Amino acid sequence: MNIRKLVKKEVSSLKAYNAKEIPCRIKLDANESPYGFSGAVERIAGIRTNRYPDPEAKALKLLIAKDLKIKPENFLFGNGSDELIYYLITTFGGPVLYPVPTFTMYGIICQALGGKKIEVPLDKDFDLDIDRFLLTVRKERPKLIFLSSPNNPTGNCFSAERILKVIEVSRGIVIVDEAYQPFASETGMLPLLADYRNLVIMRTLSKIGLAALRLGFMIAHPEIIGEVNKVRLPFNLNAFSQAVAAAALKRKGEFRASIKTIVSERERLLEEMERIGGILPFPSEANFILFRVSDPARVYTSLLKKGILVRNLNDAVRGCLRVTVGTPKENTAFLRELKKILL
Amino acid sequence: MNIRKLVKKEVSSLKAYNAKEIPCRIKLDANESPYGFSGAVERIAGIRTNRYPDPEAKALKLLIAKDLKIKPENFLFGNGSDELIYYLITTFGGPVLYPVPTFTMYGIICQALGGKKIEVPLDKDFDLDIDRFLLTVRKERPKLIFLSSPNNPTGNCFSAERILKVIEVSRGIVIVDEAYQPFASETGMLPLLADYRNLVIMRTLSKIGLAALRLGFMIAHPEIIGEVNKVRLPFNLNAFSQAVAAAALKRKGEFRASIKTIVSERERLLEEMERIGGILPFPSEANFILFRVSDPARVYTSLLKKGILVRNLNDAVRGCLRVTVGTPKENTAFLRELKKILL
Repeated sequence: MNIRKLVKKEVSSLKAYNAKEIPCRIKLDANESPYGFSGAVERIAGIRTNRYPDPEAKALKLLIAKDLKIKPENFLFGNGSDELIYYLITTFGGPVLYPVPTFTMYGIICQALGGKKIEVPLDKDFDLDIDRFLLTVRKERPKLIFLSSPNNPTGNCFSAERILKVIEVSRGIVIVDEAYQPFASETGMLPLLADYRNLVIMRTLSKIGLAALRLGFMIAHPEIIGEVNKVRLPFNLNAFSQAVAAAALKRKGEFRASIKTIVSERERLLEEMERIGGILPFPSEANFILFRVSDPARVYTSLLKKGILVRNLNDAVRGCLRVTVGTPKENTAFLRELKKILL
Repeated sequence: MNIRKLVKKEVSSLKAYNAKEIPCRIKLDANESPYGFSGAVERIAGIRTNRYPDPEAKALKLLIAKDLKIKPENFLFGNGSDELIYYLITTFGGPVLYPVPTFTMYGIICQALGGKKIEVPLDKDFDLDIDRFLLTVRKERPKLIFLSSPNNPTGNCFSAERILKVIEVSRGIVIVDEAYQPFASETGMLPLLADYRNLVIMRTLSKIGLAALRLGFMIAHPEIIGEVNKVRLPFNLNAFSQAVAAAALKRKGEFRASIKTIVSERERLLEEMERIGGILPFPSEANFILFRVSDPARVYTSLLKKGILVRNLNDAVRGCLRVTVGTPKENTAFLRELKKILL
């Protein structure tokens, strides 16, 4: 597969903005102020606010790359995964194919960038409708295919076999968005990275306790990374997010423990919801549960009256609401109110 | 002027991602983790890392809007001004016109997004070559015109009269990028905002001591803000940058003092450089000085050998280097080494 041929010609001939760091004693090259702001936060984070952040986020990159056992050159950071969606579509253009319902930003960003969107409905089990999907791939030859697995908002993983078929048939790039992978029972696509040059995996720190930072990353062949890097804003990752993420990721035990709690609470939620009449919860490999009720607007509003905010997804999945797994106490409160509403 | 008619049709029909905040007691709507990370930085900044940042950056917006005496609805934040350049070109498309030499990101981002770039050289005083510029505006009908004033890398402000002519003749949007305005003797275009519906002003916190945060903003008619907001990533401004910027901007005195020092050091640098033989420094309204030497590569390398990093801009402005104003001590060291090199 010739990646460069897939790239928009304007991007292919583009040279990335040169923001490489040159060692020096007196830095008078970047129109920064020599005077920073030193409140308590900056002092503790050890950040000189007047300097631009590391454009390559090298320290953080090494840390995550080591953790995932991949090389730093397979790696690109975004100011959230959604920035990477922007960059991928900017780099390759459309058509862009994805199943529906799924994460709405694929479609919104594609439209903003003027790309053609192609949507194929999931099958009745919320898995890829593989015959129809492959037919569309062959016919429309999408430059990019986005597969969110586990899928938001349905919660399930697509079958690995079907994802592989898509990767094999596609002559474009297939992005498997693994935002919710830490909560899934399967390992995700990372082990297959070396085998498929057109595979991009997206991950994020937003779902495991660091949403405030805006930190997503993509993992792919260095050739893809290199092309997408050309359209990346040179300082897209601010210094605070880099520092806080690096500090946080050194305390891996805490994250593992919270993920374990969330997964066990998800299973408890599911079991209890299955026992309530008039409600159909769907099994989930993510940190949320989609459930169907006969009157979603009423259930949504009744919960909100009790101070409990869930997501009304009736527009995307008929009759459905989505509840994020909270703390055990929050989940218990949610179940209690839900029972009252549906009784 | 009908702004909506200028907007790309894909964007005009786009609905922004709905990320509005709904008050609640138990928040189970956004697939966040209920468990945050609480290192020292987070505790002091008062940030719950597991929650998405305020998509509207309301607190910070109110603070800056009040300071500049503009309304919050005239206001949009970017993850650095360069993200706003991305969004403006995404919203309106090309052709994009700008004088050269200027900030290189206008051209890079325009090319990445597939827009047509039109470049008109500045006149011999680095001001707008107004006849040629207006001719180009009339002929090419650019959707967007970028004017960096004070201009990077030349340091001068374009004459206000010429900028006004461009705004009046243009049927597209004119963006006056005032990144370096805090160092200029004139007030900039803000007082004219109410008079010109096609005027956009960009500012940034990056040059006054907060580059690490990545925080730029644009000020324009609410109709322009509304359209550009449609292509904005909903959580483009992380929670740390919002918090640190708000804390910093409450200590305005510090910023004013540092700007005053930088301006007076700039004048000292200029005077002293004028006295050195074999060098032509250009007057500046910014926090840097452009200067011409007969052998820029040699001067650049010789300075770097002494640990002093400046910018070699020979490719953009023949024979020129650009030095950022540092602390008095840094500037003195720079002058001392420069004299030695040129003797």
